[in-house]
Amino acid sequence: MQQPLNQTHDPAARSWIESANAPAADFPIQNLPYAVLRRKNTDEAFRGAVAIGDQALDIAAWASRAGLNGTAADAARACGQPVLNAFFGMGPSAWRALRHALFSALHEHAPSDDRAAIEACLIPLTDVECGLPARIGDYTDFYTSLYHATNISKLLGLSGVGANFKSIPIAYHGRVSSIGLSGQKFVRPAGQIMLPGSDAPIFSPSLKLDYELELGIYIGQGNAAGEPIELDQADSHVFGLCLLNDWSARDIQAWEMQPLGPFLAKNFATTISPWIVTMEALAPFRLPLARPATDPKPLPYLDSDRNRMAGAIDIQLEVWMETARHRAGQLPASQLSHTSFKHQYWSVAQMVAHHAVNGCNLRAGDLLGSGTVSGPERSEAGALMELARNTSEPVTLNTGEKRSYVEDGDAIILRGYCEKPGFARIGFGESRGEVLPAKV
Amino acid sequence: MQQPLNQTHDPAARSWIESANAPAADFPIQNLPYAVLRRKNTDEAFRGAVAIGDQALDIAAWASRAGLNGTAADAARACGQPVLNAFFGMGPSAWRALRHALFSALHEHAPSDDRAAIEACLIPLTDVECGLPARIGDYTDFYTSLYHATNISKLLGLSGVGANFKSIPIAYHGRVSSIGLSGQKFVRPAGQIMLPGSDAPIFSPSLKLDYELELGIYIGQGNAAGEPIELDQADSHVFGLCLLNDWSARDIQAWEMQPLGPFLAKNFATTISPWIVTMEALAPFRLPLARPATDPKPLPYLDSDRNRMAGAIDIQLEVWMETARHRAGQLPASQLSHTSFKHQYWSVAQMVAHHAVNGCNLRAGDLLGSGTVSGPERSEAGALMELARNTSEPVTLNTGEKRSYVEDGDAIILRGYCEKPGFARIGFGESRGEVLPAKV
Repeated sequence: MQQPLNQTHDPAARSWIESANAPAADFPIQNLPYAVLRRKNTDEAFRGAVAIGDQALDIAAWASRAGLNGTAADAARACGQPVLNAFFGMGPSAWRALRHALFSALHEHAPSDDRAAIEACLIPLTDVECGLPARIGDYTDFYTSLYHATNISKLLGLSGVGANFKSIPIAYHGRVSSIGLSGQKFVRPAGQIMLPGSDAPIFSPSLKLDYELELGIYIGQGNAAGEPIELDQADSHVFGLCLLNDWSARDIQAWEMQPLGPFLAKNFATTISPWIVTMEALAPFRLPLARPATDPKPLPYLDSDRNRMAGAIDIQLEVWMETARHRAGQLPASQLSHTSFKHQYWSVAQMVAHHAVNGCNLRAGDLLGSGTVSGPERSEAGALMELARNTSEPVTLNTGEKRSYVEDGDAIILRGYCEKPGFARIGFGESRGEVLPAKV
Repeated sequence: MQQPLNQTHDPAARSWIESANAPAADFPIQNLPYAVLRRKNTDEAFRGAVAIGDQALDIAAWASRAGLNGTAADAARACGQPVLNAFFGMGPSAWRALRHALFSALHEHAPSDDRAAIEACLIPLTDVECGLPARIGDYTDFYTSLYHATNISKLLGLSGVGANFKSIPIAYHGRVSSIGLSGQKFVRPAGQIMLPGSDAPIFSPSLKLDYELELGIYIGQGNAAGEPIELDQADSHVFGLCLLNDWSARDIQAWEMQPLGPFLAKNFATTISPWIVTMEALAPFRLPLARPATDPKPLPYLDSDRNRMAGAIDIQLEVWMETARHRAGQLPASQLSHTSFKHQYWSVAQMVAHHAVNGCNLRAGDLLGSGTVSGPERSEAGALMELARNTSEPVTLNTGEKRSYVEDGDAIILRGYCEKPGFARIGFGESRGEVLPAKV
């Protein structure tokens, strides 16, 4: 285990907030994910909150009422800011102190004074508007699923994944300005497209708009320029995870990406879920890394017993599509795929250690994308291009519609959760993004 | 011309600050570049300033003393902040109003009251410490010199520049956290390197550390997500230019960059000059774009009469190297190359229009790198790899030392200026970065 289990992981623990105890709840007392929010339709300042059942708790307001002190109080005060960068930068001991204080106050055995302080600071989740939880200084997107890389290379007729895939957690820098929260709607991107058989590009709205199922990884404490992060220290630099949709225009990408990588194909929109599930909440779901023992060993800076034994996290991930027809007919969305983050070839810790090994400085609130998460089965693919085999086998929805790519009016919904016998369910909530028609 | 010339471009204009009138001065009254600074060795707040001769003028302090009002006063107040994002976002009319107010107050015919207000707010340049002039939300690096692309492709034994080079101002997203001001010193990056003839990468400090001579381009007013910027409007979204060194580890880059582009090879350090020369100051140095008329026309969103007629800017650019031996012997640095930005295949306006054409939102204070600037002659190459022909012909310095790449203790100094008969010299000052030995 990356972190030892403690009483906050006890599956028998129950909250006096009854909605947190429902078996399918995303936000039981063992979870306590963070977001930034305010009451809907107000001009209140955004501030940090944790989710518990169907409620959000305004952390700083609670801390001042509850007369919290010490490290937990310092951490709670930092959560009163409109972005959580300062809280992230305080590091694991502060995160842990606040988590344990919240756990005690929300626990069914909490004294009634504690309950009163909490009750005064709850807002129903249905009444909140979330904001971006951090001022994101840099956004880096990785490429760490061997299944995804293999699927894509087969579909493009390549000879296999790149020679460097098993040596390097491959990554590139992405765009911060267009990162939006769940609920994001964006105009279909237009750009240069080289049609098959043509010798000159056309300018057109993308004809091959796709999604990519990923996890977002928030950096907690950063590192100074020139000071790498050791692999076994890397998890302590990570605050937590969210869902992330790396929208991708495959046709724009194919024509622009040589030699310097994707640019306009991906920088028009990236949609993230508002709630950040902490690494501590995820501790019970650690597994050995899926990298086969027969593969060449990574270089020493990317290899440790701890990473091999517990580098993976079994997070169930689902992709759903909701079209205009679903909405008109009030039909449930169509599920497109279901996989787990446990299949990823490189771990979160390896991504962080690699990112900093050249001396690159990470800062609190930086966001990393895990790379598309695809599993070994066809139904586990993290992008529509993979599911529909590059248009040759379109996916059929429960409306009877077929899809090879994302069409105007389609919404893509990501969901994530951890479930395991003997442990409480840890949910991520959802991330929803919708494509508007191009303007051109 | 992108912008009409006016009295602030009059070469006969002189300032009552005598140092601004020296023929070789970088900062005459026709320039008025912006930076953020404070007095050295103090904990004063950083604030905006313009350079005039050998002095810096604290803009907001001057504006309040001088009783400025209207648009110029609003602009000057925005310059009182520790970063200039708000000022950049005010747009060309505010930039122009402040420039003209400064020009009047600094002009030799300024009334003595105006002089007194200015004099109270001057700080000698030798006494200032500069800060990053903007909170940079995103940094994008372009690749827009056909000479550079051609040189690199020949040196790597490729068949020529990519098929998309003449269609797309190619770009990728770079790293914000490691952007440093002139004076930046950084540790030589280490990383994975695949040595020739080897079948597995080693971990090593880079053996092929290079610089790249570029200009930095600050976005002024941004655009809303989903709203492209028209080519002929693009210059009005640009506040100004600085010098930029895109440090590059060629060996790390070669192994990591497929399929998603450069990452650790470039994100360890980027060095920029502190002074931002405005587009208005550069207006006299516009030229027709160098793109040959015989080349295929770009797509309409990248093509206009105005861009063709005045898309280029004749900015002289120089690269100098100073080694430990130069410093020990108090020798002048060695000049490595001299070229002009006028040779670039794509214009600044084309870079901006391309960046936003897919709906990507640019924000005030975003920074673009122009891509390496190399001219047609061998002595005009913007990177050492080009000058030394991929190590086959090392450069000889005035110390007798030879260089194929940048060695520990070497500093690279970029200088820039515009000169043209009938116009005042417009200087950029310099950008200096130095390599420290690797720690591994």
